[in-house]
Amino acid sequence: MSWLKILGAVIGAGLVLTAGILLGHFAIPKGGASQGAPTWAQTVSRDLDESLLQSFMDQVESAKIQENLKTLASQPHMATTEGDKELVKLLLNRWQDPQTGLDSASEDVYSVFLSFPDPQSPNSVTVVDNNNAIFSTRRSEKNVTADQAHAEVVQPYAAYAPPGNPQGRLVYANQGKRSDYQELVTMGINLNGTIAITRYGGAGRAAKAVNGAEFGVAGVVVYTDPGDINDGQASEEKTYPNSWYMPPSGVERGSYNEYFGDLLTPYYPAKGNMLLGRAGQGRAGSGIPPIPTQPIGFEDAKMLICNLAGSVAPTAWQGSLGCSYNVGPGFRTAGQFPNTSNVQVNVYNQRVIKNSSNVMGFIRGSEEPDRYVLYGNHRDSWVHGAIDPSSGTAVMLEITRVLGKMLKEGKWRPRRSIIFGSWGAEEFGLIGSTEYTEEFYSKLRARSVAYINVDISVFANATLRAQGTPPAQSVIFAATKQVQTPASPSVSVYDNWKNHFNRISPSYGVVPSIGSLGAGSDYASFIHYLGITSMDLAYTYDRNKTSARIYPAYHTAFDTFDYANRFIDPGFTSHQAVARTAGNVLLRLADSLILPLNVSDYGEKLDELYNVAAQGDFLANLIANKISLDPLKVALGRFKSAAADFNQRIKKLKEEDPLQIRMVNDQIMLLERAFLNPQAFPNKYHYSHVIWASKSSNQATFPGLADAYTSALETKDWDQVQKHLTIVVQAVDSAASTLEAVA
Amino acid sequence: MSWLKILGAVIGAGLVLTAGILLGHFAIPKGGASQGAPTWAQTVSRDLDESLLQSFMDQVESAKIQENLKTLASQPHMATTEGDKELVKLLLNRWQDPQTGLDSASEDVYSVFLSFPDPQSPNSVTVVDNNNAIFSTRRSEKNVTADQAHAEVVQPYAAYAPPGNPQGRLVYANQGKRSDYQELVTMGINLNGTIAITRYGGAGRAAKAVNGAEFGVAGVVVYTDPGDINDGQASEEKTYPNSWYMPPSGVERGSYNEYFGDLLTPYYPAKGNMLLGRAGQGRAGSGIPPIPTQPIGFEDAKMLICNLAGSVAPTAWQGSLGCSYNVGPGFRTAGQFPNTSNVQVNVYNQRVIKNSSNVMGFIRGSEEPDRYVLYGNHRDSWVHGAIDPSSGTAVMLEITRVLGKMLKEGKWRPRRSIIFGSWGAEEFGLIGSTEYTEEFYSKLRARSVAYINVDISVFANATLRAQGTPPAQSVIFAATKQVQTPASPSVSVYDNWKNHFNRISPSYGVVPSIGSLGAGSDYASFIHYLGITSMDLAYTYDRNKTSARIYPAYHTAFDTFDYANRFIDPGFTSHQAVARTAGNVLLRLADSLILPLNVSDYGEKLDELYNVAAQGDFLANLIANKISLDPLKVALGRFKSAAADFNQRIKKLKEEDPLQIRMVNDQIMLLERAFLNPQAFPNKYHYSHVIWASKSSNQATFPGLADAYTSALETKDWDQVQKHLTIVVQAVDSAASTLEAVA
Repeated sequence: MSWLKILGAVIGAGLVLTAGILLGHFAIPKGGASQGAPTWAQTVSRDLDESLLQSFMDQVESAKIQENLKTLASQPHMATTEGDKELVKLLLNRWQDPQTGLDSASEDVYSVFLSFPDPQSPNSVTVVDNNNAIFSTRRSEKNVTADQAHAEVVQPYAAYAPPGNPQGRLVYANQGKRSDYQELVTMGINLNGTIAITRYGGAGRAAKAVNGAEFGVAGVVVYTDPGDINDGQASEEKTYPNSWYMPPSGVERGSYNEYFGDLLTPYYPAKGNMLLGRAGQGRAGSGIPPIPTQPIGFEDAKMLICNLAGSVAPTAWQGSLGCSYNVGPGFRTAGQFPNTSNVQVNVYNQRVIKNSSNVMGFIRGSEEPDRYVLYGNHRDSWVHGAIDPSSGTAVMLEITRVLGKMLKEGKWRPRRSIIFGSWGAEEFGLIGSTEYTEEFYSKLRARSVAYINVDISVFANATLRAQGTPPAQSVIFAATKQVQTPASPSVSVYDNWKNHFNRISPSYGVVPSIGSLGAGSDYASFIHYLGITSMDLAYTYDRNKTSARIYPAYHTAFDTFDYANRFIDPGFTSHQAVARTAGNVLLRLADSLILPLNVSDYGEKLDELYNVAAQGDFLANLIANKISLDPLKVALGRFKSAAADFNQRIKKLKEEDPLQIRMVNDQIMLLERAFLNPQAFPNKYHYSHVIWASKSSNQATFPGLADAYTSALETKDWDQVQKHLTIVVQAVDSAASTLEAVA
Repeated sequence: MSWLKILGAVIGAGLVLTAGILLGHFAIPKGGASQGAPTWAQTVSRDLDESLLQSFMDQVESAKIQENLKTLASQPHMATTEGDKELVKLLLNRWQDPQTGLDSASEDVYSVFLSFPDPQSPNSVTVVDNNNAIFSTRRSEKNVTADQAHAEVVQPYAAYAPPGNPQGRLVYANQGKRSDYQELVTMGINLNGTIAITRYGGAGRAAKAVNGAEFGVAGVVVYTDPGDINDGQASEEKTYPNSWYMPPSGVERGSYNEYFGDLLTPYYPAKGNMLLGRAGQGRAGSGIPPIPTQPIGFEDAKMLICNLAGSVAPTAWQGSLGCSYNVGPGFRTAGQFPNTSNVQVNVYNQRVIKNSSNVMGFIRGSEEPDRYVLYGNHRDSWVHGAIDPSSGTAVMLEITRVLGKMLKEGKWRPRRSIIFGSWGAEEFGLIGSTEYTEEFYSKLRARSVAYINVDISVFANATLRAQGTPPAQSVIFAATKQVQTPASPSVSVYDNWKNHFNRISPSYGVVPSIGSLGAGSDYASFIHYLGITSMDLAYTYDRNKTSARIYPAYHTAFDTFDYANRFIDPGFTSHQAVARTAGNVLLRLADSLILPLNVSDYGEKLDELYNVAAQGDFLANLIANKISLDPLKVALGRFKSAAADFNQRIKKLKEEDPLQIRMVNDQIMLLERAFLNPQAFPNKYHYSHVIWASKSSNQATFPGLADAYTSALETKDWDQVQKHLTIVVQAVDSAASTLEAVA
């Protein structure tokens, strides 16, 4: 054989061998878990698909949201009424739709304590002279548009205010704060047996009556001052339907309840079949008005306030009713009423236990079904509730329609499970969402990645407004950079937002400013009780254009589709922007391989709270009482360093080992939980998050520390200050420990 | 070319191609996560290696344990003393040994509240007549063996009993139960200002003084009756060093403290740098004796009791001191002492805050480093502490030696991380372990699979004794079936155990009986506060052979290596069996792909507790008060069905997808956590496990329900019963919910 033949044979054999190697390597799948790639290994480390995210946003239609809202707000749907029940069906139908529905949907019923006016005996506020009622407030708002009229419009009332008919001299008590009543006493007025008229704002609804009762007040009347809600406008011509301002007959309804969750079953789900010890568990009577209370419109309030006798009220107490506000007691001579007349508050509210439903929708996660991303919004309104809450429900339904379509078409399934909640009886005190967290406490605490709340989705058209805990910042920023503003498509929601609300971050420079979560909507029990990273998203006002306390039709009979369509968001483009933003956040949380929550952002907030205590009088008083902040400083340093190292470790995660990924994700998820301390605030139901608990003090530091400090200035109980400092140190250390390398 | 050549070329090419295919398929690893098997996929689903388990057990040597014990018990090592500090060094050295050590070891220091006698002013109990001490108890035990003598032997005392020198007439108050004092009052005795002598047993140490003080008793003396500890033997000839029985001079020391954890810092780690608000946090004064208290030997007790005046004590109160026990008050005429003489209790205990250390050892898990299997044992003793606790430490050191060797030789690394704890200051109230759980509450709660406690490893040679929560049963059974008994190698520890302690399980028939965990050792905060599945393992007595309350040298100066070596476990084969069993359990928990904890075993326990409430007077009283057990019955049904379905789903898990495995393991791990309710027992520090909390009632049902029921029989507060029923229903529902399919 010639060397050429040999060469040829060798080359040929080499080629054949190479072909074989290639075939063997690429064409034949490896078998067995330990040798080849098992099927799960193909999907287990898949990351967020940006093109799918874009496709989701493209599919969100403003017209669909408008259509949703028209349907949702077509009739009143106060908690547990027929209108509410019809919406339960609507939600179930949408979420069970074969083309655009979710994997499953269900109705969860709780048996909850509510309060309604008696249709047979309407509440009123009357002026009484010689046992004759010579004036009575309106029983309902004036119908100014066609879509507003409905037999089921509930008369204005103060939910949970007790029935009764107290009668007494009228006094004007400003906002019903404790300091307001104190001021009246200082002015020499004996409040015993008086009726106090107060304006909304400054103090919680229930607080106006709780405070008043402490001073001997027998009944409370509440109204909305045009100065607070209407930028001063008070005439019919300048108000709805001619503008967005509240008409003179408008009355803000509301829950007069300082707590959240079913009042009779704190910490336990109000389930009929659990036969809860209502008497034993009950806290009825605390946190709700001890005396009859009734809200009225400013048209009626004007009749009462503008006829008061007594000294002129302080300047800060004056409003826009078009007269000088006197404090009383009683009516002036030569006014509308005899100066002998009293005011009577007639309340016939009934306490009832009724079935309220949450509607829950579910999409199963493909890789981590046991990790939940939650998204919720309440369903119940006071009247038609076009804005509160149906603007949120309309957005949620559009998000679920688009996701449902992608799901049913087989184009998408999230990495993690998604749970949608349409909460019941929020208006009475966040009841549906709280009962849900009570019922599934253990499971939700172990598995929930984050909770997104969109209650009122659009207050106004100017800018996004976001509230949330620090880890939510990064995902909200990422999402808002990808959404265009309604007004000018070249500007992102992020940039527009930064123009309206911003702050200087030590880490990032000027950034949009995220607000803190109080207990104003259904996120409350998720953050305060379960310690789940939470956020609340909405479009809102340009504060240069209005000083209204809230949108003027809030909780009135004027919160209708017409109102929303003409004055809040014509074209529904702000609704669309919110749907895109919230949906983007949701998809990032559900699909990102590494959770898009930046843990190191907590450091800035902790520093901010620390700095308040570490200077001025606060620090001086601590030192004088031998309390050192050093341990807290050490803990903060430990936290910040742990968070920075953690972020470095994430960057260096080379292999996409699913258990390594899961480990860091669990650390991110559980960071918020590390701040929980169920022993920290034994007297504050459901509040256990050491950083965000409610507080009474105006010291802008850690809430327990702030309250203990303010209290110690009076009581000298510095041990309590030391205790709450220890609680904060322990929480920050726990948070650091959660982020430090596990081994 | 001939056809033969062609054939040859084709065959040759075929062979070359085949070789290539084989090479390509097997010799070249596939690259890229989506196409080939990534490196992590080779190990991520590896299961327990049974041969390695066997190899571990084979390497456990009784001689090494004996050697460990000799070293550990060579000198007294009471918490925070020099002897204790030397053992800290020993532990660190062993665990940092390059050949047989762990990945890492560290010393964690807490600054804790302890109580010691004053070496300058020894405590005593004296008989005083006309201001002359005419008799005084021994200040120390008699040295009966050489290895017992040591300058650091602490004199017998009641830790936390306050200093004082009360003097009064002596009474005999049996076991110092509330009912015992009541009985004396019924007999017409005025207890005011008396000194009560009581025997160990029946009530907790501190309770004897707490109860007595309520009746006006001024001081308490405690002794061990030979009837309770020595099967009646009281002479020197029949006691140690001639047998295992307690010599006449022996005194049981102990902590007279009803709580666990550092008394001044409940819920917070007693860390110096946290500057805890000790005064604010403190609960000193509650749970510890309000009056001076001192333990004495029965030799001295005999002098006191056998000379008492008064009526003969009830039969059940009689003991084995060799005389008739009278109740007093005071001494009889014609006895050893003038009948005018009083007894004086002289206590000079000092309250101190001292640094106590835990020594922590760590082995990093290969696949799930963020899952912890914990194993612990305290290090501190009262005196030489050969049995309590060094028999446990000797076992732990042998387990870590063998595991460390396998680790350092590269033969093994666990799937999950293993944490070893050598706890400090257990004898004063489980302090080291409790501070550890307080400091790392959040992290441990999120990541801990189980806690294994081996305190005293061998009480006696007869049989295994296990305590634990129901899920621990399956792994303990699996382990004990693989270990041979010391006595007869053909009998497994399991079968031998079943012969000694058994019960009829509705699911399995006759099985060894696992006891409940109280708060007797360091597992307490793991189970009650953190809700981590826990167990306690030891070898123990044949109850047909002795009725001793505990091994007779317990907490005395006689608990020495000689005692252990001659009377407790000659040959150390029981120690070896415990080491093999506990190590086997540990390896199964650390290495099994699916956690070897059978969740459905909780159902039997829940049924058992339910059945007590669902019959007889208990049920009749519930019905009479309109309280229905139906919701609990429904919840139990839900739990059992969820657990059965869960076990079915595990069996059907086909793919070894690591996230699917992790999901079910998290459900197993968190089952125990679902029973926690931090609101359930607001007055019981650290108790939050609804199934296992402490109780005072003797109703063998759920503890909160049992106590509320017993109390309601007196107070008629049936709302509390309803509340605790709700708490149980909520806990069982949460547990069911944890096991139900996550999506």
